[in-house]
Amino acid sequence: MEFSELIKTATVENVLLSRPGLPAVRGTLCITSHHLLLSSCPRGDLELWLLIRNVDAVEKRFCGSSGTITLRCKDLQVLQLEIPGMEECLNIASSIEALSSVDSVMMMYPFFYRPASLRLQQGWHRFTLESFFQQLSSQTSQWRPPPPPRDFSACPSYPPAVIVPAAVGDDTVAKAARFRQGGRFPVLSYFHPKNGTALLRSSQPLTGPNRRRCREDEKLLGTILDEGERGFIIDTRSAQAAKQARMSGGGTEPKSCYPQWRRLHRALDRGRPLQESFIRLVEACSDPSLSMDRWLARLDSSRWLGHVKAALSTACLAAQCLDREDCKVLVHGAEGTDTTLLVTALAQLILDPSCRSLEGFQALLQREWIEAGHPFHLRCARSAASHGRGKQEAPLFLLFLDCVWQLSRQFPFSLEFGEQLLLTLFDNAYASSFGTFLCSSEKERSLCRVKESTHSLWDWLNQPEERHKYLNPLYSHNPLVIWPSVEPQSIQLWQGLFLRWIRPSQHLDEAWEEIQRLVEGNNSSIKEKRLSQSLPEPTAGTESGR
Amino acid sequence: MEFSELIKTATVENVLLSRPGLPAVRGTLCITSHHLLLSSCPRGDLELWLLIRNVDAVEKRFCGSSGTITLRCKDLQVLQLEIPGMEECLNIASSIEALSSVDSVMMMYPFFYRPASLRLQQGWHRFTLESFFQQLSSQTSQWRPPPPPRDFSACPSYPPAVIVPAAVGDDTVAKAARFRQGGRFPVLSYFHPKNGTALLRSSQPLTGPNRRRCREDEKLLGTILDEGERGFIIDTRSAQAAKQARMSGGGTEPKSCYPQWRRLHRALDRGRPLQESFIRLVEACSDPSLSMDRWLARLDSSRWLGHVKAALSTACLAAQCLDREDCKVLVHGAEGTDTTLLVTALAQLILDPSCRSLEGFQALLQREWIEAGHPFHLRCARSAASHGRGKQEAPLFLLFLDCVWQLSRQFPFSLEFGEQLLLTLFDNAYASSFGTFLCSSEKERSLCRVKESTHSLWDWLNQPEERHKYLNPLYSHNPLVIWPSVEPQSIQLWQGLFLRWIRPSQHLDEAWEEIQRLVEGNNSSIKEKRLSQSLPEPTAGTESGR
Repeated sequence: MEFSELIKTATVENVLLSRPGLPAVRGTLCITSHHLLLSSCPRGDLELWLLIRNVDAVEKRFCGSSGTITLRCKDLQVLQLEIPGMEECLNIASSIEALSSVDSVMMMYPFFYRPASLRLQQGWHRFTLESFFQQLSSQTSQWRPPPPPRDFSACPSYPPAVIVPAAVGDDTVAKAARFRQGGRFPVLSYFHPKNGTALLRSSQPLTGPNRRRCREDEKLLGTILDEGERGFIIDTRSAQAAKQARMSGGGTEPKSCYPQWRRLHRALDRGRPLQESFIRLVEACSDPSLSMDRWLARLDSSRWLGHVKAALSTACLAAQCLDREDCKVLVHGAEGTDTTLLVTALAQLILDPSCRSLEGFQALLQREWIEAGHPFHLRCARSAASHGRGKQEAPLFLLFLDCVWQLSRQFPFSLEFGEQLLLTLFDNAYASSFGTFLCSSEKERSLCRVKESTHSLWDWLNQPEERHKYLNPLYSHNPLVIWPSVEPQSIQLWQGLFLRWIRPSQHLDEAWEEIQRLVEGNNSSIKEKRLSQSLPEPTAGTESGR
Repeated sequence: MEFSELIKTATVENVLLSRPGLPAVRGTLCITSHHLLLSSCPRGDLELWLLIRNVDAVEKRFCGSSGTITLRCKDLQVLQLEIPGMEECLNIASSIEALSSVDSVMMMYPFFYRPASLRLQQGWHRFTLESFFQQLSSQTSQWRPPPPPRDFSACPSYPPAVIVPAAVGDDTVAKAARFRQGGRFPVLSYFHPKNGTALLRSSQPLTGPNRRRCREDEKLLGTILDEGERGFIIDTRSAQAAKQARMSGGGTEPKSCYPQWRRLHRALDRGRPLQESFIRLVEACSDPSLSMDRWLARLDSSRWLGHVKAALSTACLAAQCLDREDCKVLVHGAEGTDTTLLVTALAQLILDPSCRSLEGFQALLQREWIEAGHPFHLRCARSAASHGRGKQEAPLFLLFLDCVWQLSRQFPFSLEFGEQLLLTLFDNAYASSFGTFLCSSEKERSLCRVKESTHSLWDWLNQPEERHKYLNPLYSHNPLVIWPSVEPQSIQLWQGLFLRWIRPSQHLDEAWEEIQRLVEGNNSSIKEKRLSQSLPEPTAGTESGR
């Protein structure tokens, strides 16, 4: 396929661009393989530079000889283009539709994007399992060093190496893998240094209607617990749903076969219900004519804030079992790639201060979402304007980011990064110039040669002039567990995301920048004082942005 | 009456105090004429110092030989006291009930409070009508200088002097007063220097069922407008309610008699519906067991956020008429002491940067709420635990403070004061050591000798060590009109007030203090630099907290 075949009209003059809250602009519209550009007339300033992959839905409307195209973007932005000439309008619309629907990964923009400041194949090895294990091995010897990278045969959605208990052999692991959906056998997600407990994740066991057992799976989970020790299995489905899953070959760990493990059920929505919740919330947010009653009723009926509360509560439950009950925890739902990762990643953010640094948070995302096999390619193929066209879409990652935002609001000092990073991550998960969120597993990334042919978002973000934008000026290392309030009264709508393109947040952004400026002024004046009074520089560890 | 007659038991040992989110404390409980004290055992630290006037409701519960008293405070705090001995418990409860119900103004604590740092009779003349007029007269000669203080015969709820058009005589004013409910004839509330328009307020005209007219009232409103000029009357009742008011002697200005004035109706709730809304919201906020669905349903059914939206919208309408339509505006509902003041005070905050300084905001409250005759003594007699006992209670002033909080959230730079001031004002309006919010009018304050015998809250707040607590560290003078977004999606629950005693906001308070510290560090380092480099000091006007 050539992109040029998909572009029916490349340039139209005299197009009027309208965006809510901004003055309309008239100019020349260009369609390239990956971007939609609008340069204003007569000054020729570039007014719009939109990744076509960001377009979620194209709507056409005609009036006389001109037409209007409404572009609903995956980042929730809505653009209107008024195009003179019906044919041009139809051509532009169908070009955008065709280009935004290209499903082949290797045709996407990250394979073509070559920023001057970065070099290919760098930055992909920033956060490795080896460095994760290195830290782990200084704290415990209960876990095996990651084996040299192998193929993906045991579990196609796992990375080439994962961490399992030192006491179990490869054979046991391989057999346990065959007893778990998609081969996702229990692996280490997080080791809690305070009391030596651990967080594991997997998919559901394939007990099926005949209550099949797997001694190796039982052994794997058995060796994790000492004699007399108890562990918790947090199943992210209701007890009813977990039982029903037996009919289609899945199921749960029966008490009789896993006597030391106690099962807790916390139903978290995923898939279609979650996607519909997202769609309903975005529709309610963009309706300008609502009364307060109607708005609150629609906010309620979207059920989004309920999902946020449930995710945070379940993560707190996992964190409590680990930190307060001194118990090991295994988390899984059905496939182990969605709500499972939501819970394990959030629990780590709550428990572990190192995950709350800018660096540590990227490592967490890399390990617990990207390498752990969250199917980004399927889940983020379409956003809130998709209206039931896709079957696999679901905003699990957005739900995670929203929960992180709630934490950052309740603990304004404890996260090194601010809202801007969360927004950037949301945008890039749905449409990106970088390869980081491409594909659904490390296996797919390897097949598509993502690491060889695209740039890493982390590489970009960590450039000093970029990094700066994402820091929380008030950050100060907090070594404690941060227990959020999960009462419904404490959960707020994430206005910065859901109203980003609707209400001007200019004043709030300015406040943020002003705080940054103040902190920098303060730091530099402290440095000046130190210089003039010959005080010693603080060590790197203590001068964390404050 | 002697207070000692009301105190049946003055001291009980071994009382257990419980408060949400704080550890329980055991100690000795003392009841004095105005305070409830608890000093902990064995260390003797004072753990609680509660103004008894702050108690809104007392609930008793018995279990065996000990009893539990729950105190629901007007500031929304809830305290539990476990008291050994049934008789002691009953005595303490009835003492608190009796002391908190003392209705005689001159028996209240402000008449006994003598802080060492203040001197009586100072601080009451901080914000005078003379200084308000002085500024006004430099901009226009259309308004009369305030006459020398007179008695309150024309309007008992007005202060001794008000500002009326220069072109109308005392006779006209006196006759117009007889045509307005409670004598509240149209007076100047705010002069908009940008275009010379003005905001007036009054009560409803007493047209009654026979459509009575009053030439003097018509003349008073007529002289305000030049020939061909149009003005707007914003009636804070629905057209229907305004029409019905004729049956009980009130009414509206008919088009035929006031041809240059156009009437707009914006129904704002007051009285019982508003008080019930407040009660329902507080109950919903303090229910710890709600699901997200139930919480949003109860938030919705409380209708509080709808009142906030309606008040802000109506204030924006008034501000738009003045600033954008270049028209004079008269605001009134029925009595002109509740929603009228809500709208005129908010409109000034939106329009006038000088009202947004700490000093200017106090002057606005003094002029547009206290001296304008908002009946604080009746409206704030009981708070959210009152449950229909009072008939005159209504949280108009709280609604105003909530709207100001919404402005401060949307414009984080533009108000010189922060949330702490709004909380302090709320607390003091309901129970105070100061005389500022006592009584319902200047006439009553004069009769009770409030200014001679109590201290002014403003005097206290403006002491340098107090003032500091209320400043917004990010403030920077904004000369523009601040137009808030009044879409329902933009209005948020004021968690800092409604969840103050329920959820720990410690982290948010710390963030605020950290910003204050940074700003001060920044300012002092700028000063240091200036000293060392001999730069000139900025003038007082430009160094406004930043």
